[in-house]
Amino acid sequence: MELLSTNVSFDGEHRRYRHTSATLECTMEFAVYLPPVAVGPDPQRVPALWWLSGLTCTDKNFMEKAGAHKKAAELGIAIICPDTSPRGVNLPGEDDSYDFGSGAGFYVNATEQPWAPHYRMYDYVVKELPQLLENELPLTDKRSISGHSMGGHGALICALHNPGRYASVSAFAPVAHPTECPWGQKAFKGYLGDDTAKWEEWDATLLIPKATERLPLLIDQGTEDQFLETQLNPDALVEACKQHDHPINLRMQKGYDHSYFFIASFIDDHLNHHSRALGQS
Amino acid sequence: MELLSTNVSFDGEHRRYRHTSATLECTMEFAVYLPPVAVGPDPQRVPALWWLSGLTCTDKNFMEKAGAHKKAAELGIAIICPDTSPRGVNLPGEDDSYDFGSGAGFYVNATEQPWAPHYRMYDYVVKELPQLLENELPLTDKRSISGHSMGGHGALICALHNPGRYASVSAFAPVAHPTECPWGQKAFKGYLGDDTAKWEEWDATLLIPKATERLPLLIDQGTEDQFLETQLNPDALVEACKQHDHPINLRMQKGYDHSYFFIASFIDDHLNHHSRALGQS
Repeated sequence: MELLSTNVSFDGEHRRYRHTSATLECTMEFAVYLPPVAVGPDPQRVPALWWLSGLTCTDKNFMEKAGAHKKAAELGIAIICPDTSPRGVNLPGEDDSYDFGSGAGFYVNATEQPWAPHYRMYDYVVKELPQLLENELPLTDKRSISGHSMGGHGALICALHNPGRYASVSAFAPVAHPTECPWGQKAFKGYLGDDTAKWEEWDATLLIPKATERLPLLIDQGTEDQFLETQLNPDALVEACKQHDHPINLRMQKGYDHSYFFIASFIDDHLNHHSRALGQS
Repeated sequence: MELLSTNVSFDGEHRRYRHTSATLECTMEFAVYLPPVAVGPDPQRVPALWWLSGLTCTDKNFMEKAGAHKKAAELGIAIICPDTSPRGVNLPGEDDSYDFGSGAGFYVNATEQPWAPHYRMYDYVVKELPQLLENELPLTDKRSISGHSMGGHGALICALHNPGRYASVSAFAPVAHPTECPWGQKAFKGYLGDDTAKWEEWDATLLIPKATERLPLLIDQGTEDQFLETQLNPDALVEACKQHDHPINLRMQKGYDHSYFFIASFIDDHLNHHSRALGQS
């Protein structure tokens, strides 16, 4: 992996890297925040919060706009931001819409052509990138996962599919029941095909009944989120959790919208949540 | 003034407005952060920190990237971010370079054609906009001022020219002696003409000997700032302060660069500094 840039931030380091992904068969960029204890001449290994971003984002949005570095520096937690789709693979139609293709990988493994060889963001963020970074950077193998919107969906399905792999999970305004909303249906039809039975394994609400680990879900959702009614559907996830005795803490945040101002307002709560699970505080 | 958008942020409100500026003879946009006590059914009037941004910025950069809302919310301070130049005035060459014209007003009142009628950012940020906002929003007439790079220069000259107008001043990586650096020379020649005597009133280092108010200068400067050697010259400002017994606290921050990660790392210190001067803490 090639280091593209380093910015000192709260005495830790924000770094951007480029590498060739075997999973995605393309060149990818990602960002890492290392807290102060993990940089310098005698770096300690630290656990990591994996952050999955939403539609149209790259690795940059969360790092620049969430205001998360201060608390991560205090807690001694790294933050890792992958990109949101394969890049530069030049598939037809890839850049035609904001909610499918580039910037919209939906953290699934595509089975439909022409997406299948590249659009395998699930394997990338769950397997390839953690293996690479836990080898190359001062990270332990302790991980938590969170994300926003499409990335909140991503965080939930990654955690629900992999008992024991993440110490904790949280989400901001996740696409909580993608098989039943326009964003999810468009993405799943495109990446997975017309057989809706195949969509089910990528829907957090539909995975709750099968969950073998009772990892508590911390979810923040703004009441004035412009996508709440049409795309996000946290009530369906809460209902599934209720029926199957899965712990969930859905916090409806009065007045907040879908923006990074919302994320910034509550990211410290999420970092504290993950820190406790990771044994940092 | 027309409200363009509102985001709840740390229980306060980030708002963007549009208005027609009589000073600049064009339509301008700006952003305001109001802390929780200044919003809702019974808003209290609060003091304001005026933030002047650097080259290429708009009102958005600081609001999105500085992570300042949390501390401003706690302290009960508003933040106001003007744009960095007139917009949409269609002067020839206005968009040709990043360091002159659009996004690069340098907080002076231009005297040269064709810039003179529009490029009057000093009068805009010192006079027109405060008068407007202190009438229209729940603000007191207590103000502090800060900024970054070109905006740090702006903050310093606004404070040094107007004893009693600002309770406190600070800057991040300011262009501290613009008559002696390429950015300043290009801007001053373009906006003010060839007579370098006219440049002196817009140079913080040259204003220190004439200062009638001993307002302490708090300045943070990264040691790895890519513009430190060629453009910023904080040592000249420190030397002028030393010779004229003007209080200055220049903090050289080891390893930090010119980015918003640097600003975010120290903005809370600056907000605390201004809060004390504004009587908020």
